[in-house]
Amino acid sequence: MDMAWLQDPIPVLNQDLLKAAWVRQRQLTKPPGSLGRLEELGVLLAAMQCTQRPTLERVRIVVFAADHGVAAEGVSAYPQAVTAEMVRNFARGGAAISVLARQWGASLEVVNVGTVQPLEALPGVLDQRVGPGTANFAQAPAMTAEQLAKALAVGREAADRAAADETELFIGGEMGIGNTTSAAALGCALLGAAAHDLTGPGTGLDKDGVARKEQVIAAALDRHATPEPLEALRRLGGFEIAALTGAYLRCGQLAIPVLVDGFIATVAVLAAARLRPELSPWLFYAHRSAEPGHHRLLESLGAEPLLDLGMRLGEGSGAAVALPLLRAAAALQARMATFAEAGVSSG
Amino acid sequence: MDMAWLQDPIPVLNQDLLKAAWVRQRQLTKPPGSLGRLEELGVLLAAMQCTQRPTLERVRIVVFAADHGVAAEGVSAYPQAVTAEMVRNFARGGAAISVLARQWGASLEVVNVGTVQPLEALPGVLDQRVGPGTANFAQAPAMTAEQLAKALAVGREAADRAAADETELFIGGEMGIGNTTSAAALGCALLGAAAHDLTGPGTGLDKDGVARKEQVIAAALDRHATPEPLEALRRLGGFEIAALTGAYLRCGQLAIPVLVDGFIATVAVLAAARLRPELSPWLFYAHRSAEPGHHRLLESLGAEPLLDLGMRLGEGSGAAVALPLLRAAAALQARMATFAEAGVSSG
Repeated sequence: MDMAWLQDPIPVLNQDLLKAAWVRQRQLTKPPGSLGRLEELGVLLAAMQCTQRPTLERVRIVVFAADHGVAAEGVSAYPQAVTAEMVRNFARGGAAISVLARQWGASLEVVNVGTVQPLEALPGVLDQRVGPGTANFAQAPAMTAEQLAKALAVGREAADRAAADETELFIGGEMGIGNTTSAAALGCALLGAAAHDLTGPGTGLDKDGVARKEQVIAAALDRHATPEPLEALRRLGGFEIAALTGAYLRCGQLAIPVLVDGFIATVAVLAAARLRPELSPWLFYAHRSAEPGHHRLLESLGAEPLLDLGMRLGEGSGAAVALPLLRAAAALQARMATFAEAGVSSG
Repeated sequence: MDMAWLQDPIPVLNQDLLKAAWVRQRQLTKPPGSLGRLEELGVLLAAMQCTQRPTLERVRIVVFAADHGVAAEGVSAYPQAVTAEMVRNFARGGAAISVLARQWGASLEVVNVGTVQPLEALPGVLDQRVGPGTANFAQAPAMTAEQLAKALAVGREAADRAAADETELFIGGEMGIGNTTSAAALGCALLGAAAHDLTGPGTGLDKDGVARKEQVIAAALDRHATPEPLEALRRLGGFEIAALTGAYLRCGQLAIPVLVDGFIATVAVLAAARLRPELSPWLFYAHRSAEPGHHRLLESLGAEPLLDLGMRLGEGSGAAVALPLLRAAAALQARMATFAEAGVSSG
């Protein structure tokens, strides 16, 4: 299956527009610098949208769901059935990400990239199963090359749909019992880190559970770690993680800004950025997850997230909570008066 | 003038409602604790509103503006005329707080508590001038006892208007050239701190300017520091700071939750909380200001703000930026499905 699209060009930010946005920002009626980090966010959004008046009305949230063979190793506090149950909860509007999407007027899409069992037709859920969950990477590579290409393409298509709807910001989320184990293993492979560095309680393992999870990850790294991003994704990743990687890369290619969620999303970003470092300027980082390994991932990406509220839910929920900060930055950049317009003395 | 109202009762949170809200929070379809600080915020809002389904649709932002005699000491990077110019900018919708209020659908009221010159009638601006700015507290007490009582009452009335409009959350903001000098002096008096501890660049003083400002504050503290909150407010405060103190106290009395802005607002809270410690449960803290003394004030109040974005604008802007975090918490508490409702296995 064709993966040549992964190498499609990713545009660079227009430096003239960036400068013009800074010029406007410095003329707004407030002491220079007094809006803190919101100033740079507003300027970046202006440059990304090629306008002096950025807006973030059309926001697309896509939650990719899939199952993980490694769940058989007892690495989660929840049974595997929860992946499918939560997809139904997304569809009925009862999950955290459903509530937040409604609250902010963002459109929410759920993509089944590979639950163990096929699901009945559900409103707002696309069936794009790549397989009945991944293989257990404690025993074998998580995916075939064909499955990896398909999962990446599922993400690409989600970004393409977002672009067709003139999406101004993309948020990717994930659901998959066992996926912090997959993400930690993948992150370790990409960073050359030890299992201990990125293993955490996930949905709520106790101390013994975390130790067991760390053993599973360490053994998998011994078996088939590689720093090559696509091959690491194939051996240790998940369908939903690969879909996120594909979606992020395509968003960069399409010049759609991305607001990155927590631990798992950041691992998907890391794989994408290792493959295509030019993606970085299109990424905003929403929050610092309570999952202990997140800080290491963020550090490796030079990322300074906007929020630190101790969240660790996934689904894109941290990014959805941070979304209004970007909207505030865009609104301030676009709609504040300048000193000249307002007749205010500029000091 | 009557200040007996300051001692009106402040209700305590209903502990049964608080427990019931925690019971619901723990049944929502997510791992317990995975929404981090949003969980407690949602629970508190539920208990404050005496409901299992809190909402924050009706938000009132009130910006109190006034001038400061101490501006004559050259303690600001901006001329005193900017106070009145910014009131006009608020009225025309060009200021940061105007943009944010519109963005979130919050109602914005501006109250002139005492610009040096009277202002022409302006839409959305209430003229409640207590005097032509305060006296220069480098030379004399900032206010008379009568002025203090009036300024506190201006705040009380703003809270009463908010209550009449069934406001679910109150945000107080301020505008007044020289008011970080007043706030720092007042904060030092209340905390028994040295001028150096709370003096910072405000709107953007350089190093020499900060040194000069510190001298002015130190001399004023030598002249008339007192830890008694009302007397400290009278001698060192500003009309807008006293109005904030009055508004916060009245919000507590009326059981309206408050989202506290930055440095100056926190000093007003400190005065209010010293007078009536029972106010504390009604306060949320929005952000950590870039003004260096803010951390000391927050520490003294045991406050852990939601955001740390390097903002230092005032006007209530930090609280307005943080507002959606409380809205997210309320929405999640109110509208997520429980495990039983969604048919999701609870682990």
